[in-house]
Amino acid sequence: MSASQDLTNRQVRLARRPVGLPQADDWSFTTETVREPGEGAVLVKTLALSLEPAMRGWMNEGRSYIEPVGIGEVMRAGAIGRVMASLHPRFREGDLVSAMTGVQEYAVIEEAQMRKAGLFAIDPGAGSVTQWLNVLGMPGMTAYFGLLDVGQPREGDTVVVSGAAGAVGQTVGQLAKIKGCRAVGIAGGPAKCDWVVNELGFDACIDYKAGSVRDGLKAHCPKGVDVYFDNVGGEILDAALAKLARGGRIVICGAISQYNNTGPMQGPKNYMSLLVNRARMQGMVVFDYAERFPQAVAELAGYLREGRLKSREDVVHGIENFPHALLKLFRGENFGKLVLEVTSA
Amino acid sequence: MSASQDLTNRQVRLARRPVGLPQADDWSFTTETVREPGEGAVLVKTLALSLEPAMRGWMNEGRSYIEPVGIGEVMRAGAIGRVMASLHPRFREGDLVSAMTGVQEYAVIEEAQMRKAGLFAIDPGAGSVTQWLNVLGMPGMTAYFGLLDVGQPREGDTVVVSGAAGAVGQTVGQLAKIKGCRAVGIAGGPAKCDWVVNELGFDACIDYKAGSVRDGLKAHCPKGVDVYFDNVGGEILDAALAKLARGGRIVICGAISQYNNTGPMQGPKNYMSLLVNRARMQGMVVFDYAERFPQAVAELAGYLREGRLKSREDVVHGIENFPHALLKLFRGENFGKLVLEVTSA
Repeated sequence: MSASQDLTNRQVRLARRPVGLPQADDWSFTTETVREPGEGAVLVKTLALSLEPAMRGWMNEGRSYIEPVGIGEVMRAGAIGRVMASLHPRFREGDLVSAMTGVQEYAVIEEAQMRKAGLFAIDPGAGSVTQWLNVLGMPGMTAYFGLLDVGQPREGDTVVVSGAAGAVGQTVGQLAKIKGCRAVGIAGGPAKCDWVVNELGFDACIDYKAGSVRDGLKAHCPKGVDVYFDNVGGEILDAALAKLARGGRIVICGAISQYNNTGPMQGPKNYMSLLVNRARMQGMVVFDYAERFPQAVAELAGYLREGRLKSREDVVHGIENFPHALLKLFRGENFGKLVLEVTSA
Repeated sequence: MSASQDLTNRQVRLARRPVGLPQADDWSFTTETVREPGEGAVLVKTLALSLEPAMRGWMNEGRSYIEPVGIGEVMRAGAIGRVMASLHPRFREGDLVSAMTGVQEYAVIEEAQMRKAGLFAIDPGAGSVTQWLNVLGMPGMTAYFGLLDVGQPREGDTVVVSGAAGAVGQTVGQLAKIKGCRAVGIAGGPAKCDWVVNELGFDACIDYKAGSVRDGLKAHCPKGVDVYFDNVGGEILDAALAKLARGGRIVICGAISQYNNTGPMQGPKNYMSLLVNRARMQGMVVFDYAERFPQAVAELAGYLREGRLKSREDVVHGIENFPHALLKLFRGENFGKLVLEVTSA
């Protein structure tokens, strides 16, 4: 057993807690020699990392739905990797796996940590490595359980999703269509909006950079908004509240417009629309549905195979580009799920 | 049939739409001769009127959950009255009734309007006239369905209610206790807090005028807030969000702190607590539960009879005092359900 001999592991660590948008100095780069996995452990080589808005929250002090990343620790990240060596009976060298490896080229995952790391073997036949970080990964799970369990759409409902060309949004809208709903996206710029409508088959997409979201919702949701799946917060959440239908459901999945605020969060000032419309606003954390992930993956993989579900990933190359790549999310520059390819080998 | 002969009817009408707190000039006083009720109608003499925070919303332009009161119209209000003359088979002279009579001494209710006016005979044996405007009336119905249907408390849950000494809040907390929950009130001043704890049997009451509500919730809700019944909005809603327990439910019943804002509403900036805690915030309008009112009235009347439920009304006398009395609500000066006694006869 000497798979790790001579391997060096480049890592990105959190050097300090950012104020507002993460800066270059908030990160440190380290290099370690990969240690041999001990009894029950596996050594995973990172192929591609998932970059996601939630990472900004993990960098803040104070527990949210998950512990913050400690100063000096390798930055938390989900990845698809390849097993290079395994002393665990469930995994074999060469297996493709999904796991929270962190932002580093290699990770040794002990048996005791496997559950927390969410380590499981993936089926390369169901989707590509990047799709396993997107529609078959956490964004897909978030879309699936957020829309279906929390949003509870009924056939004929109007489902609106912000960040429609992003990782979660693209699957929310397509799933809404599959379930017989009207799907209206909100995205930034004509390219994203065109793609959402013409490639993904949404009924409409509102370009929030081009005009009033409120007017767009008025035009495209004549019967009001039955389900609003919110990834952004801020003014767009308020616009959706203003157009909510009687008995509407708002799924609170994220608030990317607010994550880099240095002042207080902007609360939804139209929240009394919940009263007027007997509506609800409910938060969700995807990890709660972990036991049902296999069922959701199977369903989504089926739609992919049948061509009823498409996916798009925005791939950046090189672990050294992690800090810069992450900022694309907060500037709305990613087009599709943002993935950092660490190695193509 | 000449019950209305010579009767004059003093009325309070909406003269203009208020900006901020209603002013004296927003009202006009008129006097009419009471007309004879025609076929199928009843003539009701107003005994006591319900004054409630929602009235402020009814005075604004634009439809909310109910049409606004028109300029020049008699101000909308619920009342307990006595039938003075009836040409309707369901009502007899002398009956006590509940109805939306408006702020006036007499109302003729046509058969076609009876449903909209919510006209029904009340049982004087179940509660006093003022209790029929409180625990057996809309505030009681709001507390009952808001807490039980929307809040869905489980035995052992911690239920927090703002406006705890007010009309809805007093019943919310007592019902929570009856259902096996821990009840924590939020009210203004030591007199109200003492009453809520020592008379009504809440486990604790936080005086929002005396210190930080957030610290109070921390002290009195060691396991977090499972159900928060919100009557006030603003900073107190944010404090409750900050202390929400996993899976918590917020019932949006009102937002009295915001009704007289001349600027935009203050949105709950801690709403992302809904995500962190997989919690929900849901609005309710009591009229939706009208078909189940008789069942709720029967249950609440039973608790009253058994002495397990108490009520307190703050009674102001004289229809001419309506404008001034209404302001007590927005200044937090009422202690218990605010009632305007129009006549004791």
